[in-house]
Amino acid sequence: MVSTAGIIIIGDEILSGRTKDTNINWIATELNNIGVRLIEARIISDDSETIIETIKNFTKKFTYVFSCGGIGPTHDDITTESVAKAFNQKLIKDPEAIRRLKIHYEGTDVEFNESRQKMAIIPSNSILIDNPVSAAPGYKIENLFVFAGVPRIMQGMFHTILNDLIGGIKLKSKTVSSNVGEGLIAKDLEKIEKKFKTIKIGSYPYFKPGNFGTSIVLRSENEELLEEASKAVLSAIIILGGKGKIVEENEFDERSF
Amino acid sequence: MVSTAGIIIIGDEILSGRTKDTNINWIATELNNIGVRLIEARIISDDSETIIETIKNFTKKFTYVFSCGGIGPTHDDITTESVAKAFNQKLIKDPEAIRRLKIHYEGTDVEFNESRQKMAIIPSNSILIDNPVSAAPGYKIENLFVFAGVPRIMQGMFHTILNDLIGGIKLKSKTVSSNVGEGLIAKDLEKIEKKFKTIKIGSYPYFKPGNFGTSIVLRSENEELLEEASKAVLSAIIILGGKGKIVEENEFDERSF
Repeated sequence: MVSTAGIIIIGDEILSGRTKDTNINWIATELNNIGVRLIEARIISDDSETIIETIKNFTKKFTYVFSCGGIGPTHDDITTESVAKAFNQKLIKDPEAIRRLKIHYEGTDVEFNESRQKMAIIPSNSILIDNPVSAAPGYKIENLFVFAGVPRIMQGMFHTILNDLIGGIKLKSKTVSSNVGEGLIAKDLEKIEKKFKTIKIGSYPYFKPGNFGTSIVLRSENEELLEEASKAVLSAIIILGGKGKIVEENEFDERSF
Repeated sequence: MVSTAGIIIIGDEILSGRTKDTNINWIATELNNIGVRLIEARIISDDSETIIETIKNFTKKFTYVFSCGGIGPTHDDITTESVAKAFNQKLIKDPEAIRRLKIHYEGTDVEFNESRQKMAIIPSNSILIDNPVSAAPGYKIENLFVFAGVPRIMQGMFHTILNDLIGGIKLKSKTVSSNVGEGLIAKDLEKIEKKFKTIKIGSYPYFKPGNFGTSIVLRSENEELLEEASKAVLSAIIILGGKGKIVEENEFDERSF
C-alpha cells in the first residue's frame, strides 16, 4: 500500500495575494523524496466551518494530512479550536507545552502572558510536535499533523516528525528535454505510454524568447523500464527531426540545443 | 453582493514538487485588485473523477471559478473531457478555434496535426477565451473559466476576460510593522477588532537574524476607519514599549527600527 497525503494551508493572507505560499512545494518535495504521494493541497480561509470540513474530508481520504497556519497567539488563530471540533475533542492546556514555553521565554524580556499561553492549548488526545525554532509546539491528532504557518518553523516541525512517516518506493523520474513542440510528439508519447504501462508520462511545453520545446517527464518505480522508455522518447524526437537529451535530476534548466 | 472565486490548479507536476505553482498567487492578486474575494484554491491531480467533483463543487459555491492546466495537445491533458462531463455537455471541434490555430501555424514549419487539433475541441455551450500568446484558446462554460497552465499563457487569457468579471468594493489594507512579538500585542488587537467591527485584522510574525517582530495587516472597505484603527494599533505598540510604523502598500519589506 502506498501512503498518501493531503496538505491544508490555512490563511486569508495567501488568498488575498499578499503572501506567496511556499509550504506546499516544500512539503511536496519532502514527501516525494520518501515515496509518500501527495494527492491534493487546499488553501482555505480562516473560517472555522471550512477548516473543520476540510480536516474531516482529508483525514478520511489520506494516510497523512498536514495543516499549516493559524496556531499562533492571536485572536485570528482559530485552527486549534477547529481541529478539536473536527475530532470531537476538548481543548486542554498541555503542561509539557507550558513547560517548554516557560523555558523558552525565561531570561528574555518577553513575558509569558495569557496570549502566549494560548499556544500551549491543544485538543485532548494529541501528541506534541517539537518546534526547534520558537518552542511553541505543533501537535499530531490521529493522522493529522498540525504545523505553524511560518515556513522556517513549519520546516523544523516537519523534520522532527519525518521519521514517523511510512513512505513507499520512491517514484524515480527521468526528464527528456527537447526542441520539438508538444503537439508534434503527442502521438508518440501516447504510443510509448501504452507500451510501458507502469510508466506515467507528462509533457510540459516551455517557451523562451527564440526558443521553445517540450520537457517530457517519465515517472516509475522501475529504473530499468524508465531508462528504456526514456530512450524510446529520445528516439521518437530524433525521428521527428528534433533534438533532445535525457537530463539528470536537478538539471532542469538544460534546454539548449 | 460580493463576488467570490475559487481556483483549481490541475497538475501532478505541482503535487510531486517538481514545479512550483505561481498561478494561484498571480490570480489572487488580480482578483483582490478588482474586489473579487478568492475563497479557496485547490491543487488537484490529473484525475478525471477529482476534476469533475471539484468543478461541480466550486461552480455551485462561487461566483467565478478559474481552472489552470491540462488543456494541451497530449494524452495527459484530460481537463476538457472532464469539464464536459461535469456540465453534461458533448465535446465539439470548434470551427473558430480551428481557424485561429490554422492561422497561427500557417507559414511556420509546425504541422497542424491531429494532436494539435485536439486543442480546438471544447465542450458544447462554451465561449472561447482568446489566447494572445499561442493561439490555442481557453473557454468559458457557465461560471467556469478554463485556462492553460503555462503562467504566461494563463495571464494573457486572464487579461482578455478581466473586464467580464464583476468586482466589488476593493478591500483596502494598511500594514503596521512593529518590533513587538505577536504574543505581546495579541490582547490589544483583539480589543481593537472588537471596537472596529468591520475591520479584519491579521497578524504575521516575522523573523530575521537578530530581528523579529509582527506585521499587523488591517483590511476594510472603509478607508477612514482603516486609518483610525491603524493608529490605534500603532498607539498600542508604543504603549507596550515597542516601535512601529504604518507602511504603505508595496513597502512590505520596511521592517527596520
